[in-house]
Amino acid sequence: MKTWHLTQQIGPEGLHLAETSTPSPGPNEVLIRIRAHALNFRDLMIVSGQYGPPPTLPLVPLSDGAGEIMAVGDRVTQWKCGDRVAGTFFQGWQSGPCHSEVFGWAMGGALPGMLAEYVTLSENGVVGIPAHMSYEEGATLPCAAVTAWQALVTHGHVSADKTVLILGTGGVSIFGLQIAKLHGARVIATSSSDEKLARAKVLGADTTINYRTTPAWDEEVRRLTGGRGVDHVVEVGGLDTFEKSLRSLAMNGVVSVIGGVSGFTSGVQLRDILAKNALIRGIFVGNRDMFQAMNSAFDRHELRPAIDRIFPFEEAPDAFRYLQSGAHFGKVVISGVA
Amino acid sequence: MKTWHLTQQIGPEGLHLAETSTPSPGPNEVLIRIRAHALNFRDLMIVSGQYGPPPTLPLVPLSDGAGEIMAVGDRVTQWKCGDRVAGTFFQGWQSGPCHSEVFGWAMGGALPGMLAEYVTLSENGVVGIPAHMSYEEGATLPCAAVTAWQALVTHGHVSADKTVLILGTGGVSIFGLQIAKLHGARVIATSSSDEKLARAKVLGADTTINYRTTPAWDEEVRRLTGGRGVDHVVEVGGLDTFEKSLRSLAMNGVVSVIGGVSGFTSGVQLRDILAKNALIRGIFVGNRDMFQAMNSAFDRHELRPAIDRIFPFEEAPDAFRYLQSGAHFGKVVISGVA
Amino acid sequence: MKTWHLTQQIGPEGLHLAETSTPSPGPNEVLIRIRAHALNFRDLMIVSGQYGPPPTLPLVPLSDGAGEIMAVGDRVTQWKCGDRVAGTFFQGWQSGPCHSEVFGWAMGGALPGMLAEYVTLSENGVVGIPAHMSYEEGATLPCAAVTAWQALVTHGHVSADKTVLILGTGGVSIFGLQIAKLHGARVIATSSSDEKLARAKVLGADTTINYRTTPAWDEEVRRLTGGRGVDHVVEVGGLDTFEKSLRSLAMNGVVSVIGGVSGFTSGVQLRDILAKNALIRGIFVGNRDMFQAMNSAFDRHELRPAIDRIFPFEEAPDAFRYLQSGAHFGKVVISGVA
Amino acid sequence: MKTWHLTQQIGPEGLHLAETSTPSPGPNEVLIRIRAHALNFRDLMIVSGQYGPPPTLPLVPLSDGAGEIMAVGDRVTQWKCGDRVAGTFFQGWQSGPCHSEVFGWAMGGALPGMLAEYVTLSENGVVGIPAHMSYEEGATLPCAAVTAWQALVTHGHVSADKTVLILGTGGVSIFGLQIAKLHGARVIATSSSDEKLARAKVLGADTTINYRTTPAWDEEVRRLTGGRGVDHVVEVGGLDTFEKSLRSLAMNGVVSVIGGVSGFTSGVQLRDILAKNALIRGIFVGNRDMFQAMNSAFDRHELRPAIDRIFPFEEAPDAFRYLQSGAHFGKVVISGVA
Repeated sequence: MKTWHLTQQIGPEGLHLAETSTPSPGPNEVLIRIRAHALNFRDLMIVSGQYGPPPTLPLVPLSDGAGEIMAVGDRVTQWKCGDRVAGTFFQGWQSGPCHSEVFGWAMGGALPGMLAEYVTLSENGVVGIPAHMSYEEGATLPCAAVTAWQALVTHGHVSADKTVLILGTGGVSIFGLQIAKLHGARVIATSSSDEKLARAKVLGADTTINYRTTPAWDEEVRRLTGGRGVDHVVEVGGLDTFEKSLRSLAMNGVVSVIGGVSGFTSGVQLRDILAKNALIRGIFVGNRDMFQAMNSAFDRHELRPAIDRIFPFEEAPDAFRYLQSGAHFGKVVISGVA
Repeated sequence: MKTWHLTQQIGPEGLHLAETSTPSPGPNEVLIRIRAHALNFRDLMIVSGQYGPPPTLPLVPLSDGAGEIMAVGDRVTQWKCGDRVAGTFFQGWQSGPCHSEVFGWAMGGALPGMLAEYVTLSENGVVGIPAHMSYEEGATLPCAAVTAWQALVTHGHVSADKTVLILGTGGVSIFGLQIAKLHGARVIATSSSDEKLARAKVLGADTTINYRTTPAWDEEVRRLTGGRGVDHVVEVGGLDTFEKSLRSLAMNGVVSVIGGVSGFTSGVQLRDILAKNALIRGIFVGNRDMFQAMNSAFDRHELRPAIDRIFPFEEAPDAFRYLQSGAHFGKVVISGVA
Repeated sequence: MKTWHLTQQIGPEGLHLAETSTPSPGPNEVLIRIRAHALNFRDLMIVSGQYGPPPTLPLVPLSDGAGEIMAVGDRVTQWKCGDRVAGTFFQGWQSGPCHSEVFGWAMGGALPGMLAEYVTLSENGVVGIPAHMSYEEGATLPCAAVTAWQALVTHGHVSADKTVLILGTGGVSIFGLQIAKLHGARVIATSSSDEKLARAKVLGADTTINYRTTPAWDEEVRRLTGGRGVDHVVEVGGLDTFEKSLRSLAMNGVVSVIGGVSGFTSGVQLRDILAKNALIRGIFVGNRDMFQAMNSAFDRHELRPAIDRIFPFEEAPDAFRYLQSGAHFGKVVISGVA
Repeated sequence: MKTWHLTQQIGPEGLHLAETSTPSPGPNEVLIRIRAHALNFRDLMIVSGQYGPPPTLPLVPLSDGAGEIMAVGDRVTQWKCGDRVAGTFFQGWQSGPCHSEVFGWAMGGALPGMLAEYVTLSENGVVGIPAHMSYEEGATLPCAAVTAWQALVTHGHVSADKTVLILGTGGVSIFGLQIAKLHGARVIATSSSDEKLARAKVLGADTTINYRTTPAWDEEVRRLTGGRGVDHVVEVGGLDTFEKSLRSLAMNGVVSVIGGVSGFTSGVQLRDILAKNALIRGIFVGNRDMFQAMNSAFDRHELRPAIDRIFPFEEAPDAFRYLQSGAHFGKVVISGVA
């Protein structure tokens, strides 16, 4: 079968297409033919050597993929051939709070990932994808969508009286927008591109701010909320945005710390945290329970993930380069092997 | 001014139209010309002497009313003449958990109520009504809508992956349906009338059950949810429904105990509570913070309360009789003095 | 090895001592030599056929036991020979909320239990016991102690300003008393025996009520709390106690529904639930995370479980009869095979 | 009566002793003869002009004081002459979450404070002090103790399986130590003085770290917890400590942001927040409900606040200077007028 191997953490150039033997499912495992893969900013960081402890090389990259179950191992009870599934980001984290072992179960990092023609996973490490979604759509869910769901629903209890701020138009942010709208919240979206902001409006954003033309976007957020600020910020920016995110917050507001597109260090005004009784919470993707709860909501509402562009399997490195350019809106997808 | 006085707790016949002097607002008080009133099942119980400790008679009944501020007393800072407001059910409960003093602050019971041409209230005992609502619509909010909001949102954290069961088509149930739908939840509604169920569908109910033709409606609920049960029951029925509500519940499900239209005693299978890790929570209307949060959601979504029928002020006792008949869908309203 | 088999659900007489072959640990399993076993009311109900769906007979009874790891299977990473461990009540429930599969993982019911000389368990189905405890003490933890911990700590957030009511002096109640005292709470204990109440005082109970000489114990609870009531009831009684437990409750109080020593049906006054904003929550033992958190607290405080009496392994049926008599205070234990 | 007036925000030198007329209680107010006052770091910042918006001068400083009710105004129902009470930090915040109006109700800042012979307060702005406490002890509660209670109990749900880190030996930290110990938690305390650490041990600290001799105290915290980190940090330090507090944290740990003794700006490693699923929460004293819950716990356990030194009323500026020196352990108190 065909597989992409990261042999050196030097960026997309470190990826090489390899031919390996197709695995067989062991006891409690399923064999999945991956029909579509999706990229996250974290995958780019791994490929570039900017993310956590170095993985064992060669590494099969990517946490996200969806496909069809082709074979089931002994004692598998949850799945049958033909089922349409996606893998979970953390293979062994099924329920309850995050704990330190979880990090050893991350696909496409501590564990081999999804950028292959076939993978075998524990039957507990997959979830069904909603019936209305294509494989391309299903592939976008494991990392970005579950992250936004954990931030806004599992912990955030977003409701129709709340206002949510999303930063930029990457995968987590656009899922955050869609999830907030499912729950009746008001959404303010930011981007440097008016064209992207127009697309955010189509997906339901109530108000938009171009942070290039309005660099003091935190002040604009407060103005747009009558001086009150927002109840929840889905904070993916890091260095360039964190302090402004805090200043955009209402009393008792929440900042979900999810990513650091612009860097993971920041200054912080403790006075802002104090005076606003603010809550800042680290969110690291999520567990299988969250993924399944989210899928039942997406299924019910026939939610469509925003896919920006689909690259052929053989051009996977170009997908990484495209993500790196920041030109995307929503998810960048790679097709399964044709 | 014109006022209805309950002089004997013998049912609607105990109500008498009286002429009293128009009050003046004291310090921190506002004078409101009530433009519409709304009925709750509790008001019927009070009028009939079936509710809690006997009130001081004559009593001005009703917790619910909305109108226009006509005068403000000394030191009032939150309101001005012309503001469109409703009273809060519990005059002094502004924030935080319920406590026993709260019951001494209930309008139309421990305190005189709203079925009068004018009332004076503390400036902290009123909230603004959403701009898109008529006075008739605003008058329906203080008791039934806040109750449903507290049950489903404040404590219930209803979300788009959940299924909610509402019982019947009274005020709390229909607000419960609308609030659950605002948050993307699936709603199953019951009634003895197919015509009412059709109206529930128009308001967004996903599935309906006629409990007359399907007396084992709890089994039907489980069937409709793939054997799983519902996540939340808005339990207004009491004696006739409580045990079946418990049996309708999914693992970790919640029953909000709100009312007892059919009586307040019931049997209970503790085994059901145990085996389902069920949560049963008493909900008693709510505080001003909840009312304001709800109004901001209703305002944003231009939610329209379901008003069944509007009676003229002079025919208030007929409104009570109509509510007693159980023929209504949503709220029964009484006009302000013309 | 020696094993007790339940061959008929006719009470302790249905238990028969058998000789079976010692099992070997499979992959991810450990072999434990059980050094002490403990009884719970549920075990008595199973032996008597009064508990849930009939198990596969012959059944090895008991959820509770502690012993020494004698061998580890392939791929075991958490344990080594000589480790002192107890089994978890639900073998597969490690983290997060209860779900319906959990019931298929109950030891000594859906799964074979601990009343044997040796057992093999998944390495995820055991926890270490605190170093200061004997095997007899460690054996008392899996069911009763975890139940009390989940009720009072995991969900109850018991704190030093709260008052807790425990009913009787069975295993869950005495652990409830000890756990509440660890957190600084005030404890009111009931019993029909002044001698047992004196022992409860030694363990820290602040106030006691003999419910035989004070049948209106709920009124006494309210009197003892200045009319306020208690914040939390650890409700193990069921039929005979549930309504009075509710009446003993303060505003916003919690009833943890844990057992039904006197029967699982009860009446319920919904008005009490409503007027007190009461919370009633079903508690079913708990998961491995809760067990480990509890053990770390017990370890730190060198808490000693209250053991009433220890029966020799060969006299296990007498231990069941003794539990049935209700004469015990705390836990009834059975020694391991000598 | 005698009163201290801050006439210029230039430090303790800006305080002047004045003679003013004794106030009379208005409706719903009580007159309190203040018998003891206590200092907080915030009072020092106000006196020095380093805290929030400038107050109206002259200002009567201090949020903390306790005394005896000497007269009650019309309509007062909660108090009678002779009652021993303390004022609440935020006069109007009785219940529920913090909101922005609360800041207009802060004693000794937005409102005149307690450093006077007599004050009048709303009857809702005082709480009874525990019977076993002296006035000096009662005076220490309103700011520091309520802050620690809100952080650790109201939001933190501290329990006997948790480990709490307190920084230094100021008022909030020492109350944090005592409150954590009331709930059975393990406490690690830091100080630059071995003598203070010895005193912290007497109050129950399990482990201590001298941060002068062990500047990498975060590493020492991790070592002392077997690499796990602590569950809760009571973060009063700010600039010099915040990043290390985060690094001291266990998975799912909490940092309560309370103060900034060393400055309110800091760097922050978002990666630490993310990878630990950390929770950072701003805590601003607390409401009257929290104060009363805490007092009921303190009363039950006859907790004694740690008072470092008591200055005579006439030497109040020296008390400020002493606090500024950082030599104290626990609270610095000022006597009432003799």
